[in-house]
This record gives sequence, C-alpha cells and structure tokens, in this order.
Amino acid sequence: MDAIDVIVTKRDGRELSREQIDWVIDAYTRGVVADEQMSSLAMAILLNGMNRREIAEWTQAMIRSGARMDWSALPGRTTDKHSTGGVGDKITLPLAPLVAACGGYVPQLSGRGLGHTGGTLDKLESIPGWRALLSNDEMLDVLRKAGAVICAAGDGLAPADKKLYALRDVTGTVEAIPLIASSIMSKKIAEGTGALVLDVKVGSGAFMKTVDRARELATTMVELGTDAGVNTVALLTAMDRPLGRAVGNALEVTESVEVLAGGGPEDVVELTVRLAREMLQAAGVSGKDPEEALKDGSAMDAWRRMITAQGGDPDALLPKAAETMEITAPSSGVLTGLDAYGVGLAAWRLGAGRERKEDPVSFGAGIMLHAKPGDMVRQGQPLMTLHADETSRFERALAALEGSYTIGASGDGGLLPLVIDRITA
Amino acid sequence: MDAIDVIVTKRDGRELSREQIDWVIDAYTRGVVADEQMSSLAMAILLNGMNRREIAEWTQAMIRSGARMDWSALPGRTTDKHSTGGVGDKITLPLAPLVAACGGYVPQLSGRGLGHTGGTLDKLESIPGWRALLSNDEMLDVLRKAGAVICAAGDGLAPADKKLYALRDVTGTVEAIPLIASSIMSKKIAEGTGALVLDVKVGSGAFMKTVDRARELATTMVELGTDAGVNTVALLTAMDRPLGRAVGNALEVTESVEVLAGGGPEDVVELTVRLAREMLQAAGVSGKDPEEALKDGSAMDAWRRMITAQGGDPDALLPKAAETMEITAPSSGVLTGLDAYGVGLAAWRLGAGRERKEDPVSFGAGIMLHAKPGDMVRQGQPLMTLHADETSRFERALAALEGSYTIGASGDGGLLPLVIDRITA
Repeated sequence: MDAIDVIVTKRDGRELSREQIDWVIDAYTRGVVADEQMSSLAMAILLNGMNRREIAEWTQAMIRSGARMDWSALPGRTTDKHSTGGVGDKITLPLAPLVAACGGYVPQLSGRGLGHTGGTLDKLESIPGWRALLSNDEMLDVLRKAGAVICAAGDGLAPADKKLYALRDVTGTVEAIPLIASSIMSKKIAEGTGALVLDVKVGSGAFMKTVDRARELATTMVELGTDAGVNTVALLTAMDRPLGRAVGNALEVTESVEVLAGGGPEDVVELTVRLAREMLQAAGVSGKDPEEALKDGSAMDAWRRMITAQGGDPDALLPKAAETMEITAPSSGVLTGLDAYGVGLAAWRLGAGRERKEDPVSFGAGIMLHAKPGDMVRQGQPLMTLHADETSRFERALAALEGSYTIGASGDGGLLPLVIDRITA
Repeated sequence: MDAIDVIVTKRDGRELSREQIDWVIDAYTRGVVADEQMSSLAMAILLNGMNRREIAEWTQAMIRSGARMDWSALPGRTTDKHSTGGVGDKITLPLAPLVAACGGYVPQLSGRGLGHTGGTLDKLESIPGWRALLSNDEMLDVLRKAGAVICAAGDGLAPADKKLYALRDVTGTVEAIPLIASSIMSKKIAEGTGALVLDVKVGSGAFMKTVDRARELATTMVELGTDAGVNTVALLTAMDRPLGRAVGNALEVTESVEVLAGGGPEDVVELTVRLAREMLQAAGVSGKDPEEALKDGSAMDAWRRMITAQGGDPDALLPKAAETMEITAPSSGVLTGLDAYGVGLAAWRLGAGRERKEDPVSFGAGIMLHAKPGDMVRQGQPLMTLHADETSRFERALAALEGSYTIGASGDGGLLPLVIDRITA
C-alpha cells in the first residue's frame, strides 16, 4: 500500500477500499503519510466525494486511531447533542443540565470557537474557576454528581481527526461534507454516547449556507451514527439571524442562566426544550418533561452541581468588558433583517472570538441585541450594545455590521422557521 | 493575499487572477506557502483545470522564480527539442550535434530518468569523463566550440518548478496537464532558446497514453511557447513500441553513434532527421540538410567536439554489463506486438533506471531488440538480449516482459504511425 495509490484512486473518481482507508488513516496518524499527501487526498475527496460505505469506514478508522470511552458504569442512559455552530448558539449550556434533570446522562466533549462562531468551552471558561480539562475519571465523577459534564476532548480521542482537522484548516479543505461529517461523528462516537441529536445550523451565520447542503450533511451524519450503533437524529435549525439576544462568552452564560431560571429569550427556550425532548426520546428515557424541569428549578440545580463539580463558582460575578457602545435605530419601522454572519463577525472583532488557535478570547466582549427581526423599533431606540475591552475595537465591529440590519415597513425579511426539518435514519 | 484564498478559488472552479498566481508561486518558492497547501492547490488544478491565460501566467511566474539564460552572444540562432520521454528514446544524442552541423545552436538542458523511461544525462554519463554539470560560461564555451551542449539545469533555473515537481511526484498530482506543460515550458523558456520543437510521445511507454491527451498537452505547450515569444512546434510521435533497437544507457549511446555514422535503425534515423528539419525551420536556419550532414560526417564531427568539450572521450570503450540472457521466439510467425511499457519496465529492472532519485544507474544494463513489430521470426531465433550486472535481475525483468510480445500470423498489431500529427500555433 502506498499513499500515491490511495490519492490516485480518489483523484480518478474511484472508491477507496476499506484496506486503503484503514491504511491511510493509520499511516497518517503515525507520520508515515506526509501532510502534503493527506492534503491532496483531502482535496480529491472534497471534489470527488465519498459514498456511504467509504465515509463510515473513514470514520471508524479515525475512531480506532484512539480510545473509545465507555459509560456503562453509569446507572442510566447517555445522550448528547452536537451543534455545527452558529452565532449566539449557547444552547448546550442550559441543555446539558436540563436533560440531566430529566433523567438522561450527558457526557459532552465540546470545542472552542474559531472564526465568527463561538465555542462552548470559551463561554464556560468565563465562569471563575471552571475547568475544561478533565481526566476520564473526573468526567465520570462529574456525571455521577450532576448528570452532565461539558469538557474538552483529551489527546487520546480520535487523534487522526485532530491532526487532519488542523491540516484541513490551512489547505482549503474544511468544506468537504464527508470530512466534516466524519470529523464530528468520529469524536461523538468515540465519546461513547448511546444517543445523539445533531443540531445542523443553516444560514449566513452557519457553515452550511443552504438547506440542501445542511440536509446532505445531516443525512450523512445520521447514517454514520446509525451505522455505528448510536441512535442518531438531526434537526435543521435556523442560523440566518442570531440565536437569542446575547452574543459573546460571559454574555451568553448570563442568558443561559436566565433560561435555566425559567426566563430567557423565546427562541433559545424553544430550541433548548425541543432538543432536550429529542435527546431524551433518542435515548429512550421517559422522565420529567423539560418544560417542567425549567419551571421547578431542577435544571438550575443540575447546572449548579455541574459547574461546581468542574471547579466553577455558579454565584461568581462574570467578567464584564470595560467599554460599551450603543447602536440606535436610524429610523422608525420594523426590523426586517438582522444578519447572523454580520453580528457574529462583529462580536468576533470585538474580542469574543480568536483569530488564531493560540489566541485568548475576551470573556466580556460581545453584543447584546435589543431588537430581533420582526420587532417594531422607533428612531433613536437602542438596537444593540457592543461590548469590548478597548474602544479601538468598535470601528472594525461597526464595519462588520454595515448592511447587517435593515428597517422597513413590515415583515421579517422571510426568516427561516426556527426548526426547518428533522432527519432520522 | 493568503494561500487559502488561492486554493478555494481554484477548488470552487473559478479562475486564478494574475496576482494570485504570482503571489502563490513566489510565496511557495520562499517557503511562506507550505507544501501541504501547494499540494491541495495542485490537486484542485488537476481536477478543475486552468485556462490558457492562467497556464501562461503560472509558467511566467515559475520562470521569474529564477534566472533566464541569454544566448545573444552566439553568432547564430538557438533551437532546441524536448521529448516527454519514452522507451529507447535516445534521439537527443544524435539530434543535437546534427542540428549544430546544419547551422543551428542547441543549448539543451536535459534531465535524468525516473521510472521506466530513460534520461539523456544518464545515457551520456556512460561516456567516460563526460560531465553533466556546467556553469553558464562553460555552456557558452561548449556551444561556441561544438554548436550544441547537453547538460543539467542549474539550481537557479525555475527553482519553483524544481520544488513543485518534487512535491507533485509524491502527492498524486503529476498527471495534471497544466502543471506538466508549465513545468516543461518554464524550464525551456528560461533556458533561453529561440525556437523549440516538442516531441510528445503517445502510447503505453509514454506518460500520455492516448492521442487525445497528448494533443491536449502539445497544444497547451505550443500556446505557452508562442505566448512567451519562443517559436514552438510539436510532433505527436509513437511510443506504443520502443524506439530503435537499444534500450539502456551505454547501449543507446552506441546506437546513437551508429546513426551519426550514417547507419542505425530506420525509425531512429527517420525521427532524428524529421526533428532536425523542424528545429532548423522553427529557428529560420537554412543551412545544410540533415540527411546530408549524417552522410558527410559533419554531424559526427559535431558530436565528437561536443563530447570532448564536456570532458568526455568519444573513442573510449563504453561500460558493458557482465551478464546477458537471450530471449528466443517461442514459435515462428510475425512479431505482432512489442509493448513499449513492458520493455521499458524490464530495462529499468535490469538496472538501466533508478527507483529513487538518489539511486545510481547501471550504464551497461538494458535490452537489445533483435526483432521489431512486423518482422518475421523463426522459432528459436533470438528476439532480444537482456544485459545486467547480476544474473539475479533477469527474473524480475522476464516477469515485466510477460505478455509484452506476441507472435501471430501477420500484421503489426495496429501500430501508431511514427509521426502521428504536427501541432503549430
């Protein structure tokens, strides 16, 4: 077997055999296949595709490059959610403890933000003391205490994916659906969850800009999960406008706690409850109803236990940005558009996101939205507040927001429904 | 400008701008663009193509990565030939001095063999004392003395191509016509020749297996040369069977000297004379006719001057392999097929070629063909003689030859005409 044979097979539009896939993933992990060989293979996969069997075998080979976690010691069933990422998408924060309060166990390995979308770990790290890095034993301990854990994936989990993801990031091969799907699913399957709900975002603020592309990715991932024995369901959800009113790390934690307290923005509550029900159903857990768990305080209790068990102080004051700037409505009317990508880019430029993997984020930076599409606004009324550590960041954020919001006579600019579709095996 | 922008442009099937091409070639030469980025770009180019403008600008950018040679100090016009490589293709050896004898100046930068095709420099190095590495001043001196020089390209010539060629070799991206064409033409244009004749080989023993692919490559290269002010013509010629009777380094030198002495195999003589006329015509040189220069000894005189000027002894005995093995005809009839690839692979396994760039070649190893397609043979008559330094090499060579020759009732198996087509701007 050699790397050129594998590359040429895919380059010429033929199917990779199981032997070729197993060999190339293993050899790449060991450094026998070089980065420049894997990147030309990734480009050939992006342009010529892989079929269901190839994607499944590619994913299994990535899982086998590392350890697979095992939660059979827990007294209940595991279930997890993965979002493909969006602007203001803090859903994991209220969702994991909510599902725990309803009888599921949520062993979530999560990531950091890159580009205009935020990362769950960055958000939680704005809570003083909270730790993202846990050993497997610590994860099990937090799950036993709180029913949910959110932490970083260790080095031993799908190391082939870690190496390949970093390579794709610099070689223009991120957008290949077979590679996106196998990257996500290799980590989720290796994570050992018994059930999985995928939240595939669609719209300007998402990686998938169209419903068709999102459906293709969702279908591929549902097939992969199913083939690997994980009960998997996907929702396609709207990311043409930001989710909720808060965009930025500590700002989103605050909004999440509002949801857990029984309040919070309608869209965040609706999606959190819907995903919680999907997660419980996929795992076959019939406990408390999620709406009830938000009302009776049990979801908040699970949140406090989870944060505390990971070293965080749920009562601590969160970091605030030193500077704020208000954007007001230039005219009266209806807010007919609020573009997710523009808002996400602005929040990123304010300091909420990172430019390079090694950069720190500003916990306090971000945007609070005072109006959502379809809302009536009066001239001079605050539309949003920008938060940053330095006033010098406002100018570039304003440039990102230019054209991102429109005020008109009526309507909401034809927004996508919050939940667009549901994909099952 | 950044590498990912350039990659994504070509990945998504769009045209690269001149700025993108100039930047990426320069940045790759300087190491700012990494190998893994260039290889994914090369795969995107292979699968999505480049148009005439892009290929021309890509070639110009590679030329500008190094020096361009200048032969204006010579008292006559320069003209050169490039072959895409084949089995038994020793044409450069008699051709360069033949053209010199007819009034052209031939400043040929040549290469070494890799895989089943031989390299001109390897062949000439079988002549004791002959040196492939010359400075620019030495090249000019040999040209003045002999009218022709054949030597290795220095490091300063199209360094971007040198780096990219090595990368393509290990990343499954050799076969991209825009990259093959720009690689060949960047070196030939930088070499500074005023006219150029391309010998694009077609058939099992060539890189281009079909007339269509060969015509596409030839047309692309003729356009590139023309756009760069080099008067360029291409011939498509047959490489379904070996050229001549000798395959292997010293064996081919001997056959070349026979041609220069007015003898030699018919096909080698015919192609040498045809290419010489094309080279003289492309340069606008109207001197002695090539057939005349072979008969009157002036081509042989130019050969002896050229070899001597590069340190070689034209009268020295050439290396001979220690062991030989005869293959005889298994039955009587007509030799209806003699596959170029099989013969080339066998010669390579006998030691005439190298497996890795750094391997030495055996000067004496190779194959002498005693019958060519269409010839009558009697059972037991020698078909070919294998030459190697060790008898242990014969077994693998015989395996390569299996099925490579057939004896039938009549015909030559539908051979391609020696010269298939002529492509001009």
